[in-house]
Amino acid sequence: MAFNLYLPPQATTTPLHRVPVLIYLSGLTCTGDNCAEKGFFQHRASQKGIAIVYPDTSPRGLMIEGEDDSYDFGSRAGFYVDATKEPWSKGYNMYSYITEELPKALFSSFEQLDSSRVSITGHSMGGHGALTLFLKNPGKYKSVSAFAPIANPINCPWGQKAFKGYFGEDQQSKWKDHDATELVKKYKGPLDLLIDVGTGDNFYKQGQLLPENFVKAAKESGNDKDLVVRYQPDYDHSYYTMASFADDHVDHAAKRLCNQVAGMKSGKSYDVQLNITYE
Amino acid sequence: MAFNLYLPPQATTTPLHRVPVLIYLSGLTCTGDNCAEKGFFQHRASQKGIAIVYPDTSPRGLMIEGEDDSYDFGSRAGFYVDATKEPWSKGYNMYSYITEELPKALFSSFEQLDSSRVSITGHSMGGHGALTLFLKNPGKYKSVSAFAPIANPINCPWGQKAFKGYFGEDQQSKWKDHDATELVKKYKGPLDLLIDVGTGDNFYKQGQLLPENFVKAAKESGNDKDLVVRYQPDYDHSYYTMASFADDHVDHAAKRLCNQVAGMKSGKSYDVQLNITYE
Repeated sequence: MAFNLYLPPQATTTPLHRVPVLIYLSGLTCTGDNCAEKGFFQHRASQKGIAIVYPDTSPRGLMIEGEDDSYDFGSRAGFYVDATKEPWSKGYNMYSYITEELPKALFSSFEQLDSSRVSITGHSMGGHGALTLFLKNPGKYKSVSAFAPIANPINCPWGQKAFKGYFGEDQQSKWKDHDATELVKKYKGPLDLLIDVGTGDNFYKQGQLLPENFVKAAKESGNDKDLVVRYQPDYDHSYYTMASFADDHVDHAAKRLCNQVAGMKSGKSYDVQLNITYE
Repeated sequence: MAFNLYLPPQATTTPLHRVPVLIYLSGLTCTGDNCAEKGFFQHRASQKGIAIVYPDTSPRGLMIEGEDDSYDFGSRAGFYVDATKEPWSKGYNMYSYITEELPKALFSSFEQLDSSRVSITGHSMGGHGALTLFLKNPGKYKSVSAFAPIANPINCPWGQKAFKGYFGEDQQSKWKDHDATELVKKYKGPLDLLIDVGTGDNFYKQGQLLPENFVKAAKESGNDKDLVVRYQPDYDHSYYTMASFADDHVDHAAKRLCNQVAGMKSGKSYDVQLNITYE
């Protein structure tokens, strides 16, 4: 499995200075390259001293029949779940990959990364991934945000196709267990979450994203106090949209990843890094 | 001919507020898309209120035999010259296109653009284009900068192949007339120029760029007073390099494109736009 890693200038090995990590999960059809090249999170991350990890969106080349036939299922479309239905259960375990395998490889290979400070964000299918991984693992990620997330997959065509393929018909447990709108109903807050959706996004207009359902569920469960959903006028589903608001999402992560020293006041505040040792 | 145009938020039509323009010339193999997607000039341009134009690198589909055979000659490789040798002279007129035809189309179609404030920059072959168009047209562009420019084409393989193809063997007049190192010898300064070259750039190491020759010629002609050439350690020829230093090049252009009002002093300086009428 290939991924891209951006190390900010603050990450140094002599003396060792560990930087926090923001995981960016990509959407359908993407690899780890798209956002690394076009999302432009690195600009603000270089100022804040945050590393960014860009994983792939699925396994590649497992030789499962039909794995490359659809843009929205199989390769390029792992949906950040562990498939339970054959033949996909043999290797489509993106949930375990992002939450366990990748971090293990990452933190053992790059000692500049601080495993105790990790946040998550993503776009579209990756926004779904960011939301569900955060909601299913309280305390694992310091913060979460999303661009145009598939916020209620059990009620949209993309999600229904993917969940039926990866899980089968078990809608009451498996499907709901990977649906952000269902998960937020049970979440014990606080939920400090930033979501951007473009009103010119065709997939939003086609009902693939359904952020309103998520907001309604968050409200009804009392998890909406720190929920910010911004409907950006005319912005579309493209990386231009992400590049336009990437600063805000890095800043959102930096609030939780980078400690501010209250004592340092000379006209501006300073973001400093904690130096926490991990084993 | 297709191009991309970035209009900053400061460009408004009601009431009409004209913004200055930075032309970005791309390198070999590119279209107007590469830098618009990956160079990330828009981030600082949106703060400074500068529009950016990304032209294509050559004519397309002229049906000239062999036009698509090489990555470094013909389509995708117009070299920003007007070819004099047949069959290329029939349509390979990128010099006239960038300096005359494109501005005419641009300023008549987008009234938000201020035709009296135009700067130019570019990468590799486009860096060559930016330098030569600036040096050959004193006063036409408010400023010039370049990433990894082909700074002395008559002495490198890329340039020799292109000039031989587009001009024939007339090295003493046509070739030298489109060579930045030759042109700077005759330039009547001041020449306020920013150039970035990565020391990990393979084409730099292969002798395709030759910035040292340009610097030497600028020194000998007394045009080096405001010449800044930065050798960026380990940076390569890619758009990641441009994205890393795009802010500096937009700032370099903004010095000449955006007037600062001397009277406005309240702790910081304000960039404001001139409202000059063009016919």
